[in-house]
Amino acid sequence: MPAAPTRDPAILSRAARIRLACFDVDGTLTDGRIHFDAAGGETKSFHVHDGMGLSLLRKAGIRVALVTARASAAVERRARELRIEAHCAVADKFALVDQLRSEMGIGMDEVAFMGDDLPDLAVMRAVGLAVAPGNAHPWTARDAHWHTVAHGGEGAARELCDLLLAAQGLVDGLLKATVDGRGA
Amino acid sequence: MPAAPTRDPAILSRAARIRLACFDVDGTLTDGRIHFDAAGGETKSFHVHDGMGLSLLRKAGIRVALVTARASAAVERRARELRIEAHCAVADKFALVDQLRSEMGIGMDEVAFMGDDLPDLAVMRAVGLAVAPGNAHPWTARDAHWHTVAHGGEGAARELCDLLLAAQGLVDGLLKATVDGRGA
Amino acid sequence: MPAAPTRDPAILSRAARIRLACFDVDGTLTDGRIHFDAAGGETKSFHVHDGMGLSLLRKAGIRVALVTARASAAVERRARELRIEAHCAVADKFALVDQLRSEMGIGMDEVAFMGDDLPDLAVMRAVGLAVAPGNAHPWTARDAHWHTVAHGGEGAARELCDLLLAAQGLVDGLLKATVDGRGA
Amino acid sequence: MPAAPTRDPAILSRAARIRLACFDVDGTLTDGRIHFDAAGGETKSFHVHDGMGLSLLRKAGIRVALVTARASAAVERRARELRIEAHCAVADKFALVDQLRSEMGIGMDEVAFMGDDLPDLAVMRAVGLAVAPGNAHPWTARDAHWHTVAHGGEGAARELCDLLLAAQGLVDGLLKATVDGRGA
Repeated sequence: MPAAPTRDPAILSRAARIRLACFDVDGTLTDGRIHFDAAGGETKSFHVHDGMGLSLLRKAGIRVALVTARASAAVERRARELRIEAHCAVADKFALVDQLRSEMGIGMDEVAFMGDDLPDLAVMRAVGLAVAPGNAHPWTARDAHWHTVAHGGEGAARELCDLLLAAQGLVDGLLKATVDGRGA
Repeated sequence: MPAAPTRDPAILSRAARIRLACFDVDGTLTDGRIHFDAAGGETKSFHVHDGMGLSLLRKAGIRVALVTARASAAVERRARELRIEAHCAVADKFALVDQLRSEMGIGMDEVAFMGDDLPDLAVMRAVGLAVAPGNAHPWTARDAHWHTVAHGGEGAARELCDLLLAAQGLVDGLLKATVDGRGA
Repeated sequence: MPAAPTRDPAILSRAARIRLACFDVDGTLTDGRIHFDAAGGETKSFHVHDGMGLSLLRKAGIRVALVTARASAAVERRARELRIEAHCAVADKFALVDQLRSEMGIGMDEVAFMGDDLPDLAVMRAVGLAVAPGNAHPWTARDAHWHTVAHGGEGAARELCDLLLAAQGLVDGLLKATVDGRGA
Repeated sequence: MPAAPTRDPAILSRAARIRLACFDVDGTLTDGRIHFDAAGGETKSFHVHDGMGLSLLRKAGIRVALVTARASAAVERRARELRIEAHCAVADKFALVDQLRSEMGIGMDEVAFMGDDLPDLAVMRAVGLAVAPGNAHPWTARDAHWHTVAHGGEGAARELCDLLLAAQGLVDGLLKATVDGRGA
């Protein structure tokens, strides 16, 4: 069986309960760079490993949401492609996540949030599993339960996806389906 | 004589038989980043070292194919420039590679495949030489025969090209032709 | 209390006096790369961590100015978004900073400048706190009072922002306001 | 006096004679990545430190030429901005450099060439100072007289510029002019 990204029983126990996984975008699903062109356009870079992980979570029945303070056409397009939901221009991430949780009838202990800077701090202090990319800002990283090895935009989100899948015992079936179905 | 990228006799022996070399794109020929702009466009970044290697394989008579699950105009354009074939929007990479192999009348032991994530797993388990970039996802990397030092998009594919050329005794002639012809 | 990025009392003392913080752009707020497209466009990449830090400085009442020798629509747009001032196409950075300082009625000891190459050297020799990113050019870096760990465009500017906020005793209140207000 | 990037007397002696400095583009002045967008456009990323170095060489009276096998509007634009010459779509780099040298009435020992892959090999074997970026392809790197610490596109070319300026005794005057003139 492939290894989970951590063996820490406290983290695996938190991960086993998660029904809703929320991800900040800039610095978490990207490397934090926002590319500005001369014409006023804005480009973001997403990683294919993260996209695969978010799709696997969705197929496994875990709700996935992108939550960002910026308005961004690129984020909405990426979410559409992965068939997950995106919440852009969110001023209060805690309130948004609390509302999603309430609609699902689950507790905050069943919510994971991955973020890397101050706008993520309030919600990270409230959820059952708070995760920070390896290069998160230190004033926010210190409030995370778990830190990924990978940096934002380089597979950090995939590590959280892998953790949730492993903690919920879904990896072996997933790999078998992948090889039998010859895709992912 | 310049060094091959490995001295492992088992790997060199596998590499000496290859007639068809297939490469995944995102995460293998790129660093995994997909750049989304506000207007809905999508950009990928290829490495000039990899392009040189793929051209050298083609000139050496080894068939080269790009195989990707995404539809991508950028991939088709890169392949056209290198005068190699591209297979985009491929749902079942195993079936595609098996068909190419069958058309050539060669066995799976004469096929190399380089990939980095779950959609590559089935075909990597079937070919004679399965290679993963240094930063491949661990659940796929563990099924590769050989791992490059370079990460995807930073020369990983070139390492496989160099391995095939070295294992087939083509490097010295290639360097001589390069210097005599003053190009590549 | 979160740690300041340095414990050096001489640096903290310099930082405690700063009322105007000026930042070079290319190589300081970016990783030094300028992306040229075929159509004549030019793109720069800014980091979201730096943007957060510059906004925090502004809200804390420290004046923030971007100062660059290049003309750049991307810089002006980034500054507008962060509601800070940008001075582009500046041939003599020392003269510009000296003028800003004079308008404010403060001394050079109350000015910080962060830069990474020769056009920044004269002004860095004059200000109270001269800072260089971790990968600044060596002929300029040697004249800085302090060097960040992060490279330009990867959070180097944020380290200076954190230093100023910490040296001026503003971090605890800032974190409390962030969590209470659930944003940043 | 700021340090030269090497203390090797053989390299400094070679560098002291150079009147013409030629640079490959992809992998040398860039990190080797070529960004392909969906619309058929192509973007390259140049580093601001390299641009500064190339300008300094030009002002010091050393002729600077970009020499690339690709046709590229981005290269021509970058060269125009730095007021240096660009030679694009060059099939035989040795012949081109030999012609430039001949026009100047200088010997090959007065020419430096920086490159990173096989198309650069013939000319690198012929010039007085052959330099490879830290991440050059090994089959080419082994024929260089000197290897920079920086990788291509991250300041490798600037190291060669610094070497030439230092070996020709121009650094102190340059720094003084920079600080006195308050620019670069």
